[in-house]
Amino acid sequence: MRILIINPNTSVEMSKTIDSMAKKYASPGTEITTVNPQDGPEFLANAYDEALQVPKVMHLVEKNKGNYDCFIIACGADPGLEACRLITKNVIGIGEAAIMTACAVAKRVSFLSTTKETAAAVPGRLRYLGIDPSRCASIRYVGASDEIVKKRNEMLEAYCQVGRKCIEDGASALIPTCAGMSDLKEYLEKRLKVPVIAGVVSAIKIAEQLPT
Amino acid sequence: MRILIINPNTSVEMSKTIDSMAKKYASPGTEITTVNPQDGPEFLANAYDEALQVPKVMHLVEKNKGNYDCFIIACGADPGLEACRLITKNVIGIGEAAIMTACAVAKRVSFLSTTKETAAAVPGRLRYLGIDPSRCASIRYVGASDEIVKKRNEMLEAYCQVGRKCIEDGASALIPTCAGMSDLKEYLEKRLKVPVIAGVVSAIKIAEQLPT
Amino acid sequence: MRILIINPNTSVEMSKTIDSMAKKYASPGTEITTVNPQDGPEFLANAYDEALQVPKVMHLVEKNKGNYDCFIIACGADPGLEACRLITKNVIGIGEAAIMTACAVAKRVSFLSTTKETAAAVPGRLRYLGIDPSRCASIRYVGASDEIVKKRNEMLEAYCQVGRKCIEDGASALIPTCAGMSDLKEYLEKRLKVPVIAGVVSAIKIAEQLPT
Amino acid sequence: MRILIINPNTSVEMSKTIDSMAKKYASPGTEITTVNPQDGPEFLANAYDEALQVPKVMHLVEKNKGNYDCFIIACGADPGLEACRLITKNVIGIGEAAIMTACAVAKRVSFLSTTKETAAAVPGRLRYLGIDPSRCASIRYVGASDEIVKKRNEMLEAYCQVGRKCIEDGASALIPTCAGMSDLKEYLEKRLKVPVIAGVVSAIKIAEQLPT
Amino acid sequence: MRILIINPNTSVEMSKTIDSMAKKYASPGTEITTVNPQDGPEFLANAYDEALQVPKVMHLVEKNKGNYDCFIIACGADPGLEACRLITKNVIGIGEAAIMTACAVAKRVSFLSTTKETAAAVPGRLRYLGIDPSRCASIRYVGASDEIVKKRNEMLEAYCQVGRKCIEDGASALIPTCAGMSDLKEYLEKRLKVPVIAGVVSAIKIAEQLPT
Amino acid sequence: MRILIINPNTSVEMSKTIDSMAKKYASPGTEITTVNPQDGPEFLANAYDEALQVPKVMHLVEKNKGNYDCFIIACGADPGLEACRLITKNVIGIGEAAIMTACAVAKRVSFLSTTKETAAAVPGRLRYLGIDPSRCASIRYVGASDEIVKKRNEMLEAYCQVGRKCIEDGASALIPTCAGMSDLKEYLEKRLKVPVIAGVVSAIKIAEQLPT
Repeated sequence: MRILIINPNTSVEMSKTIDSMAKKYASPGTEITTVNPQDGPEFLANAYDEALQVPKVMHLVEKNKGNYDCFIIACGADPGLEACRLITKNVIGIGEAAIMTACAVAKRVSFLSTTKETAAAVPGRLRYLGIDPSRCASIRYVGASDEIVKKRNEMLEAYCQVGRKCIEDGASALIPTCAGMSDLKEYLEKRLKVPVIAGVVSAIKIAEQLPT
Repeated sequence: MRILIINPNTSVEMSKTIDSMAKKYASPGTEITTVNPQDGPEFLANAYDEALQVPKVMHLVEKNKGNYDCFIIACGADPGLEACRLITKNVIGIGEAAIMTACAVAKRVSFLSTTKETAAAVPGRLRYLGIDPSRCASIRYVGASDEIVKKRNEMLEAYCQVGRKCIEDGASALIPTCAGMSDLKEYLEKRLKVPVIAGVVSAIKIAEQLPT
Repeated sequence: MRILIINPNTSVEMSKTIDSMAKKYASPGTEITTVNPQDGPEFLANAYDEALQVPKVMHLVEKNKGNYDCFIIACGADPGLEACRLITKNVIGIGEAAIMTACAVAKRVSFLSTTKETAAAVPGRLRYLGIDPSRCASIRYVGASDEIVKKRNEMLEAYCQVGRKCIEDGASALIPTCAGMSDLKEYLEKRLKVPVIAGVVSAIKIAEQLPT
Repeated sequence: MRILIINPNTSVEMSKTIDSMAKKYASPGTEITTVNPQDGPEFLANAYDEALQVPKVMHLVEKNKGNYDCFIIACGADPGLEACRLITKNVIGIGEAAIMTACAVAKRVSFLSTTKETAAAVPGRLRYLGIDPSRCASIRYVGASDEIVKKRNEMLEAYCQVGRKCIEDGASALIPTCAGMSDLKEYLEKRLKVPVIAGVVSAIKIAEQLPT
Repeated sequence: MRILIINPNTSVEMSKTIDSMAKKYASPGTEITTVNPQDGPEFLANAYDEALQVPKVMHLVEKNKGNYDCFIIACGADPGLEACRLITKNVIGIGEAAIMTACAVAKRVSFLSTTKETAAAVPGRLRYLGIDPSRCASIRYVGASDEIVKKRNEMLEAYCQVGRKCIEDGASALIPTCAGMSDLKEYLEKRLKVPVIAGVVSAIKIAEQLPT
Repeated sequence: MRILIINPNTSVEMSKTIDSMAKKYASPGTEITTVNPQDGPEFLANAYDEALQVPKVMHLVEKNKGNYDCFIIACGADPGLEACRLITKNVIGIGEAAIMTACAVAKRVSFLSTTKETAAAVPGRLRYLGIDPSRCASIRYVGASDEIVKKRNEMLEAYCQVGRKCIEDGASALIPTCAGMSDLKEYLEKRLKVPVIAGVVSAIKIAEQLPT
């Protein structure tokens, strides 16, 4: 199966992280390519940034639709997912993938959003997906948009601290929503002793179940 | 209050219809201007078309944000609503406006969508808005995308017929979702004897309640 | 359009406030008359008071049904709404009108009820209307029943304080449920910088969209 | 325990039926008295009739509150329930009692309402009570208001026929909502082979669990 | 009516408490027998213990199905309820019975679970039953599994204290979920002044309404 | 990762099918062993059969808990899932896994249950999981319990026919709930042109994301 991962953020660094996490968890028969739009914000901090990138994500799906069996949109807000599903049949959003996977391993899950704005969008997203709010232990955010990209290492401790609060809130699985933080999965799991669901990984695993 | 209505469809004809309906129902103190993006589909037939127009809608809000007190996005799917609300404070979507208004006048409402694709998006939209599905009597679609724009008059009878089916489904108010059909409101009300909620009108009425 | 507003409270003072707020926001073609039952409590403090006034509200609708195009019940609990809708076709409750309007302008809304009892009734009311509880940031009450009527000016500061707490709770629009406080709308909006949805105004705006 | 059953309908015949059903299922220590208001409709056919009787029900509770340990409102729509609960502590509605009891014995239940109007009120009632619509197999109505009171015996066969349809709809328990038909319970159970939950009986059984 | 109460816990002491509570509230025509499995945990502290006892509960239903008109499973988690309903027609779980009864007497109810694990299972149980979470004021647990059985008297004060917190949470009825604590009903009602719904009693009252 | 798949059915044939499907989709680093209890029904046709097997499933988890990193319960009803999660940390049910995975690839999904009884259990299961019923297009059953095991090949055409009806119902992904039919996945996908989600495969893919 040939998968094209589209990172709607323009950070090449982030695309590399995503690509290497995806390849690490993929089956041998899965070929992964990761791209990102040329222009737009390095880091999507809210619905404004996400909306701007949607046509660029759509364009990347259209341009490549003959060459891949499945497309993954690598941003927790799943920008352009419904639109892309009208272009080609197999399109997965890492946001949906992570939420659904987490709900299959834990009674209650928590979200570690990046910014206050993306955290505020989660309840509407859960309603849209038809997930009862009582499955969600808490929605917390870790930092500001700049910090996620620029002070990546300093953020590790923040993720641990917020993760611990989420466990106190009753979560038995955590979702760091940002694709760019997906490589934190194993680090956080070791520190926090609960499954940390990285949407990039979940999306690959779901993609590998789809007919080509 | 100065209101800018943004019709995400590029049909100038449709913008005129919207503009005249909005002005007909507006209060004397309300100044209305209606614009549409220069390029893109004449008629938004599905989530693909809608997503393409979102950055153009956002651009129109940004360009005009000092000059208006409120912005109305005139498409039943409310494309770009959340993104635009991050640009300026008073932004209303005619989709949300119509649904909420209809729920304030009827126990159960029906949707007269334009196309099969836009009809299929309604359940997710209701969930997102947190409206219980039992408030909705039915979701029916009236025709194909071309017909709405090109065979406008031939569509009138189709709207009546589908409207009658919705009333049999248990609806006591109807929502024709397309902004371009908002001028059908009074015609359909005379024929069908139930309130027909035109989102353009509802949005104006809600805008007039907002602080400037 | 001729609208009869029925204030189920017997306070003539309150009816005057309602009448002047309604007229201020109505379109030129809208004629507004406001009445209240002759006997019963000055201020409806709970479900007991409301129930007592229902037949009197119904009587006023029946007596006037040939002379008006629409009836508005001016109490946040919408006493007698379903019963009156069986008498004549166009009946709007300010409670429903405010909730639905607020949900069209804000992700999450808060209620500023008057008394503890009316606050406790809000969750059941939201369920009845089919509005998901996650749309509601908080339900707070401002004072005791006597205070609302007798110490009207002293209550202004209390409304501001409680409103500020609601904004901290996550609300981006506020609903002061009492019709008698509807003239606080603009004062509170200036102080709190969020839309304050007055059901009396919302109901007028919805009425103006109905077929006569 | 001394229980006052208040039949909001004015039919003395109906009050006798209710009284004898209640006594048949009550424990020896339970003393039952059944009354009805002097004036108002013989049979409550819709929300209009119900609302008219509410203050009379309230008056009967107030007048008798020192003399009884519990009050039961004997109409499936539970008119005045919340108001009466503000007068005295133990008040049960047969509508709530029947729905909750049926949900404790069956996966899915059906309602046999009397009239089209009372049937149309059931979905809102379920939402108000916080009962998920998927617990309800169907809501059907058996006849017109006059028939229920005047052609009582002719209605038996109609109840059986509608009951059979409900079982085909997937119900494994039935609720005939009208208090006046509560004596059908055993007849219908023999014919239809599923539990038939009579609210009058359910309310007595719940009352007997309350502290006096 | 002949009822067999099956206490899934193996504590004979607990079975005696259940039996005497059931007999105290039963009608004269109701014959009650209470049994428990011979082996297994004295006290079911979580889903593990419950699951172990299910086949034993099923066996007791099968062995006795000709000799009783109704079976009651006397554990708040209702272990084996759906399975037993496939063996014979009248089977009631005290968990379901208590929740439904409490919802018929109070706007909001609280659960006094025994252990942290059983408390954590309540939200899923409410969802399964289709009861909206907003009907639930709080879910609190009183102690550890050993304490419930061995330090029964010392637990009384703990129940009062936790019950008081639940009332502060907004509950107007309480459900002590453990069948073995059902005899606390009257003691707690005197102390706390709200209805305390004992599932064993509720189940008997519902059983007495079923066709034999 | 070492995974033990426990097939609660006792059919060795079925265990082989499950084992080979699981191995086909597993990553190279995943070691899979599949076992089934020695005694009990060959095919679990309803909640009765499922409940009987629960302690045997629990026993298999307990016996093997040191030797495996994750356990998968291979029956669509997830018998014993909550109980086993109290024994060891990584336990996945194929029912939950399939539902969640399907919801990540399709707006609306349908269930192809084996028997009428297992189909009837799906709505309660969805409620328990907190999945809104509007995500489900339909729940249909394919045959009788005997047929599934004994006339396996004759069932293929039945699955296709029922699958086609589900697609007409609006499903864009299908879930054949029975673990024993998981090898139909690819056959049905070719015939029906929609993703067919096999819980065994979904569970393996989720397991591979868990910390060991």
